[in-house]
Amino acid sequence: MLKYIGIVRENKDGKGIIEIYKEYIQGLYKLEEFSHIIVISWLNKVSEEQRNTLIVRPRGLLKYGFRLEDLPEVGVFCTDSPHRPNPIAISIVRLIKRQENLLHVEDLDLFEETPILDIKAFTPARCPDDVKVSKWVEEFEKKLEEIKRKKTPF
Amino acid sequence: MLKYIGIVRENKDGKGIIEIYKEYIQGLYKLEEFSHIIVISWLNKVSEEQRNTLIVRPRGLLKYGFRLEDLPEVGVFCTDSPHRPNPIAISIVRLIKRQENLLHVEDLDLFEETPILDIKAFTPARCPDDVKVSKWVEEFEKKLEEIKRKKTPF
Repeated sequence: MLKYIGIVRENKDGKGIIEIYKEYIQGLYKLEEFSHIIVISWLNKVSEEQRNTLIVRPRGLLKYGFRLEDLPEVGVFCTDSPHRPNPIAISIVRLIKRQENLLHVEDLDLFEETPILDIKAFTPARCPDDVKVSKWVEEFEKKLEEIKRKKTPF
Repeated sequence: MLKYIGIVRENKDGKGIIEIYKEYIQGLYKLEEFSHIIVISWLNKVSEEQRNTLIVRPRGLLKYGFRLEDLPEVGVFCTDSPHRPNPIAISIVRLIKRQENLLHVEDLDLFEETPILDIKAFTPARCPDDVKVSKWVEEFEKKLEEIKRKKTPF
């Protein structure tokens, strides 16, 4: 039912290459006119047991200085945990350049060899205004802002 | 490989109900703390022939006053045409309320009976800054702005 249209060929600290298989290359025509793309991938290393996970703590936040005990338990559909009934990941990444069937990208959060299901050009119109998020997400985003400010103090 | 976790139960002019199957209800825990969700669906009416389409015109723009001859031919991965190798749709919709396993939403662009693969809470951090889009998308977005302005002239 699912077709793999490509694979993450390389990823060094988020800078990577997505290879789209030759038979799908036509579908990339004019993609280079966009600065960002949505990469839809299938996390094929997720086990059947992990696919049955329904409650998680958003552990991805630990690396930003949150403590495990401060992270709430939430339903998996509130998060982008890879452990979910269908391990589909959505990554919005910068498209640096396209070389035929090779997409050179930045901000890539996928391991090498991850199969790709789809690519969609990103357009700002996709993002709604007046978004309200959960309190723990707000705190997380405030923390992220602080980290970014510290990186560029001037 | 794919599990259907739910289905579009109702859609009247974009206002609809997504039913998540009872066995996945735990995964919705605290989802109501978010105003918007990402709905990932599988457009199961798309035929095998349509799944082999790689070049399209973004016909969705016709309803905004574009003429077919003004629409460029582009690779399917530049668009969100339903006709693509994996007919996966991404819809970002407003979550009005949750009633147990029923999600009442607005801005839903999916037909009734469309199977659901995944739900992810939407957070503004997902959207990158400094996005560049193709010229035809820019024109389309300008046109959309005009339409919105006309609707609320004061």
